[in-house]
Amino acid sequence: MALSKKPYKGTRDFFPVDKRIQDFMFKNMKHTAHLFGYESYDGPMLEEVELYKAKSGEELINEQIYSFTDRGNRFVAIRPEMTPTVARMVAGIHKEVAKPIRWFSIPNLYRYERPQKGRLREHWQFNCDIFGAPGREGEIEILQVAVTLMENYGADSSQFEILLNDRAIVDTVFTGMMKCDEETTYRLYKIVDKAKKVTEVALADMVTKLDLTSEAETIFYQYLKLSNFEDAINFISAHGDLSSSFHEFVLGINDLDLREYVKYDPTIVRGLDYYTGIVFEIFDKNPANRRAICGGGAYANLLKIFNEAPMPGVGFGLGDVTLRDFLETHKLLPNLETAENDIFVTFQDPACRGEALKLAQKLRKEGVKVITHLEPLKFKKVFTLAAKKGVKFVTLMGDRELEAASIQVKKVESKEQFDFALTDIKKISDLIK
Amino acid sequence: MALSKKPYKGTRDFFPVDKRIQDFMFKNMKHTAHLFGYESYDGPMLEEVELYKAKSGEELINEQIYSFTDRGNRFVAIRPEMTPTVARMVAGIHKEVAKPIRWFSIPNLYRYERPQKGRLREHWQFNCDIFGAPGREGEIEILQVAVTLMENYGADSSQFEILLNDRAIVDTVFTGMMKCDEETTYRLYKIVDKAKKVTEVALADMVTKLDLTSEAETIFYQYLKLSNFEDAINFISAHGDLSSSFHEFVLGINDLDLREYVKYDPTIVRGLDYYTGIVFEIFDKNPANRRAICGGGAYANLLKIFNEAPMPGVGFGLGDVTLRDFLETHKLLPNLETAENDIFVTFQDPACRGEALKLAQKLRKEGVKVITHLEPLKFKKVFTLAAKKGVKFVTLMGDRELEAASIQVKKVESKEQFDFALTDIKKISDLIK
Repeated sequence: MALSKKPYKGTRDFFPVDKRIQDFMFKNMKHTAHLFGYESYDGPMLEEVELYKAKSGEELINEQIYSFTDRGNRFVAIRPEMTPTVARMVAGIHKEVAKPIRWFSIPNLYRYERPQKGRLREHWQFNCDIFGAPGREGEIEILQVAVTLMENYGADSSQFEILLNDRAIVDTVFTGMMKCDEETTYRLYKIVDKAKKVTEVALADMVTKLDLTSEAETIFYQYLKLSNFEDAINFISAHGDLSSSFHEFVLGINDLDLREYVKYDPTIVRGLDYYTGIVFEIFDKNPANRRAICGGGAYANLLKIFNEAPMPGVGFGLGDVTLRDFLETHKLLPNLETAENDIFVTFQDPACRGEALKLAQKLRKEGVKVITHLEPLKFKKVFTLAAKKGVKFVTLMGDRELEAASIQVKKVESKEQFDFALTDIKKISDLIK
Repeated sequence: MALSKKPYKGTRDFFPVDKRIQDFMFKNMKHTAHLFGYESYDGPMLEEVELYKAKSGEELINEQIYSFTDRGNRFVAIRPEMTPTVARMVAGIHKEVAKPIRWFSIPNLYRYERPQKGRLREHWQFNCDIFGAPGREGEIEILQVAVTLMENYGADSSQFEILLNDRAIVDTVFTGMMKCDEETTYRLYKIVDKAKKVTEVALADMVTKLDLTSEAETIFYQYLKLSNFEDAINFISAHGDLSSSFHEFVLGINDLDLREYVKYDPTIVRGLDYYTGIVFEIFDKNPANRRAICGGGAYANLLKIFNEAPMPGVGFGLGDVTLRDFLETHKLLPNLETAENDIFVTFQDPACRGEALKLAQKLRKEGVKVITHLEPLKFKKVFTLAAKKGVKFVTLMGDRELEAASIQVKKVESKEQFDFALTDIKKISDLIK
């Protein structure tokens, strides 16, 4: 039986046109990161499973991870996310480097999931993290990076928004104000995570099961109705330190024109993860593609699993699958159907082969991107093929040119013709570039 | 117990300085590929094991591959090489696209190996392939790409060489001239593969065990002594088609100035792999680092495993680990100790924070790479930190500047000072760029 030509379930083949789209997306990620002085890093595809367990608990490990035992009896996983790797790396060097540490990466990640729109088993994720920034500055900067990235794709506040919460607020409400114990707090987190996906009745049903005091229940529903920063700050105003610290954060994002993008949302908690400060998600505003493109937040204790002193970190991850959906939905992708090349070197007489290929190589030494046709090509086919190859110029060479040691160069768009001696390398490359 | 900060055995962490070196290497790979009109593609990290078995046989699969059974009972592998993936992809689309197809990729690959100098469990590999080129043109072009890549790193013929053979020659010698059966041919391939690594006595010992006729044995030792293209062509001259076709290939590489790099070597066979035409390896000429940096060759039948008509392909893979060793050995790496950034925005008075960060963001909108210091920074520390961050300029801002709505910009190298209004964004960015 013949082998399948399809990629493994839930993964993608990137044919050149797909790869050009990916490269376009990646280029902007790198460019944006560099605008903020973030430095590129990378880590291995495999990590020991212990690393993910320590960070995320058993649940994710058992259900969603690609893991296996290697021949040396190590229990390893294909990385499902980059944060544990970056934490491991930062734990190893943070004492020797100046703070803040600003790093980014675009790793490919694996999760064992049922493939569906926007979710695949393999995806690439732009990860930006800042470690050791003072006060709330890291949180503000990370939001700035995320917004600048989206703006650099040409997106604006009519197309995306950032829904944001602070885990310190959630904790204050659940434990400080509602006086819930650990178990109830845990269950409240799960309910909040689902609040927008279920009906009001279903929500009430889940809350009733918690057996809260009527006072706590009232606070909980009041909390869920908070819809802007000012209300949230007032709501927790009895907790002076937090409300003034969150107020400082809000002033910071106002200062840097982030406010048009960022909206307070009490239902954003980012699951049971390790966040301790802000948590946020970027959402596509188009109802047809209503989905989180990006998620992130601030964490204070991630280095603890390596026995290192706490160091604040803030970061986000933005996946290529949902980003591409977003860019397509809003028509923000350029036309990348064909590659971009400079010149298509063809010859019409077999005797010209040697001279044509030599010319091609000399042009490359001048930095010209040259595609050669490796056998004689009929004149009438030259421009059809040239269009497919995305070139701006073509060369033609027959017996007459060979005898005269010359070459015809034609501009693809205008068909304008230029005649050069074969030795006019500099002149030809100047014309092309 | 605290978690380990080390990466998984046989893999590497790429801290920013390492990543800059990798980026430098990758950039040249992409640039060289684009000079020849090769288009970038990519495929998934996981493939079904069947794909590798069909191409390489059981041996590689059992000993060297990372494989496991997924939750859907698929037997999958982390890709150990890219060729089966590219063959699968080309098999799916080759009927619809103009030939030749020129593709490249830089995938990360896994092999289960004992880590040692030049060999790790995870490495990245530059893969270039051309499919459907006429005659020997694909072979010649692929060598040209490999040589141009090395030249673009600044390497020359005193530093590397390409040792090359043709599997059609080897087959002709073993089966046509020595008249060996399949089993003996198989064993001869294994012996040839080891010929340069063992003593003459050990070699003779292995050959004796084959029980060749004395005539065949003589031919075999004559073959092993071939040391240039002309001798090889003469040796197989009775086999007209092959010797003239190989002669044509040799003329082709002479034409394009590849001859100074390429040397005939009868011991290059590239194992038991699927090659049918040329096989080659790039070697570092430095005795301290005598090792293959790159291997490749021509294959006619790779699409057969997908029930597709044969289509000739030629390609090579060049790994990042051995390449970095080569570049370091020959001092061909630039100094990448620090990142390259444009300006380091600092302020000395806490009241300046807002204005300094706003200025930073406005400069970014002009394409300037800006690193901010997020808290007041003492003047005497500014230049020390600036040096670590690889910036060309710094800004300073205290109460006097704030009052005058101005900013001091200093050139790091000369300490030359420029004073601007905070609104002079265009002027500041012109100075910097």
